[in-house]
Amino acid sequence: MNKEEKILQYLDLPFQHIHNDILKGDPIAAARLISMVEDDDPTAVKILQELYPHTGKAYIIGVTGPPGTGKSTLIDGIIGYLRKEKKGIGVIAVDPSSPLSGGAILGDRIRMSSHVEDEGVFIRSMATRGNPGGLANATIEAINIIDALGKDVILVETVGVGQAEVDIVKIAHTSIVVLTPDMGDDLQMIKSGIMEMGDIFVLNKGDRDGADRVFQDLRNVLAGGGNRNGWSPSLFKTEACRGIGIQELVEGVRLHRAYLEGSGNIGVVRKRRSETEFVYLLRDALLDFVLNDMIKIGTLTRIVDDIAERKRDPYRAVREVIAGLKKRS
Amino acid sequence: MNKEEKILQYLDLPFQHIHNDILKGDPIAAARLISMVEDDDPTAVKILQELYPHTGKAYIIGVTGPPGTGKSTLIDGIIGYLRKEKKGIGVIAVDPSSPLSGGAILGDRIRMSSHVEDEGVFIRSMATRGNPGGLANATIEAINIIDALGKDVILVETVGVGQAEVDIVKIAHTSIVVLTPDMGDDLQMIKSGIMEMGDIFVLNKGDRDGADRVFQDLRNVLAGGGNRNGWSPSLFKTEACRGIGIQELVEGVRLHRAYLEGSGNIGVVRKRRSETEFVYLLRDALLDFVLNDMIKIGTLTRIVDDIAERKRDPYRAVREVIAGLKKRS
Repeated sequence: MNKEEKILQYLDLPFQHIHNDILKGDPIAAARLISMVEDDDPTAVKILQELYPHTGKAYIIGVTGPPGTGKSTLIDGIIGYLRKEKKGIGVIAVDPSSPLSGGAILGDRIRMSSHVEDEGVFIRSMATRGNPGGLANATIEAINIIDALGKDVILVETVGVGQAEVDIVKIAHTSIVVLTPDMGDDLQMIKSGIMEMGDIFVLNKGDRDGADRVFQDLRNVLAGGGNRNGWSPSLFKTEACRGIGIQELVEGVRLHRAYLEGSGNIGVVRKRRSETEFVYLLRDALLDFVLNDMIKIGTLTRIVDDIAERKRDPYRAVREVIAGLKKRS
Repeated sequence: MNKEEKILQYLDLPFQHIHNDILKGDPIAAARLISMVEDDDPTAVKILQELYPHTGKAYIIGVTGPPGTGKSTLIDGIIGYLRKEKKGIGVIAVDPSSPLSGGAILGDRIRMSSHVEDEGVFIRSMATRGNPGGLANATIEAINIIDALGKDVILVETVGVGQAEVDIVKIAHTSIVVLTPDMGDDLQMIKSGIMEMGDIFVLNKGDRDGADRVFQDLRNVLAGGGNRNGWSPSLFKTEACRGIGIQELVEGVRLHRAYLEGSGNIGVVRKRRSETEFVYLLRDALLDFVLNDMIKIGTLTRIVDDIAERKRDPYRAVREVIAGLKKRS
């Protein structure tokens, strides 16, 4: 029986099986629950809720940066080092696919292929399927599921420099930003955008033209400030596809973790994660609650039509909805 | 008196001045109001509301794609063609800077420098300053402000492939996705992510190695489906920095516009924009309303602490908040 068949099997099992199997460390059960989360399956919440007390143990590493910087290859390398110590690893690749299509791909799996067959490594791509903010929520929940699965370290890869990164930066214990020398021209644009998003910066493809100059530029930028929880970001040069610099990077993550634990800032990270989880769930639930109400009584279409025809403005329309909620009290 | 001094002057003027001056086409007034929106100035909403009936006239073009693809240079070229026809142009560069720092840059202005001194072109960078989703809202409102300013065409540039793109795709009449031959390796990953996000695709830096192959790949992918409102996406090859292919691209945008107007789908786009505006404003307003309430009565910190310590789970916490709202009715 292959993995896909096993996943299908869960369709017929009572949901407490999924819960129990995840706590026993069964990756197929975890994969099934993540799919349920992506599909907005209402029964997922019940299982997530039961799993929640078993979360909060994994160390979460965010790996972010523009497309084409070699993040997946870098993660592949990091996994190699962590697996030598028998650490259980989870990997989430956040795939910013279009909400207009609901499409999803698993291209990242290929790049991490050296670990696909390793039972100690759980790899998962996440795709957005619909509502704005949905991907952030689903990713947060996938992290919790893999956490409950008992993995020691969870690596979360996000592509681009958009909202998804912002979210993972709030959740991760250590946030790694990956750049390449090709980004030299864009460094000016990129640096103020993401310099504050990393605890650790990596200049990957360090053998390329101009790497030394960009490395120096980055060093200067980082020296100029920008830190999270009192930590001055560190900088590494790697050639992920040849395995160069990975060990130093893994050591760098360890140093940052030691700093967080030594300074007590690990508690700050924990609360930031909890607040982000709560606020994001709340935001979606509130919108759902109110929009469903509006759809039920038929006001949504009318309001949208009125706005489209400029008979009404959206600011007043929103105020009226909020006023309606206040009046209830 | 330079622009910055003029902007400062508005700090002392009554707000109806800003409103009237924007309708008269004063770019300084528009810049001031956009800053107020970014700063979450509560008086901005009043002005936005008054301006709203004067919006909905501009044609909105989204330009999205990974960093380093030459979007700004391409936009610079597009502006050149549109200015020959005396069209009034607005440009919004959405800058995905970190919400952890509140930083912002205007690097894009440099790339569009050929038009910075042109009174017919209004250029603005937008940066996120805080709450998740804030950048999307601020961008939507900046579009309305420039619309009210009387510009004929508004180009909105977004970097990366994250949530901000998703938002602009919903708002724009024509959505242009810019790629480069360097993306060849990532094409597999990128294509399913953003193929459905474009009405028009541009392979920029078309003189680079492998351009023809990637162009063919893109053509094949696009032929395989993916369309918005019944339009099959078109594909162009450009060398923006040498001005090659820009005229054809501008012609392509015109064709798409003609399609939307001819098919009546322009009305679909208009409603999609109105719904997006309303729902995004509503989402933020609801969250603000509820969180402020929770902060006032001191429950937010307690809930977050409980979640961090796993004494409570965030799903139940959210349900309790929603139940509280329902009980009010």
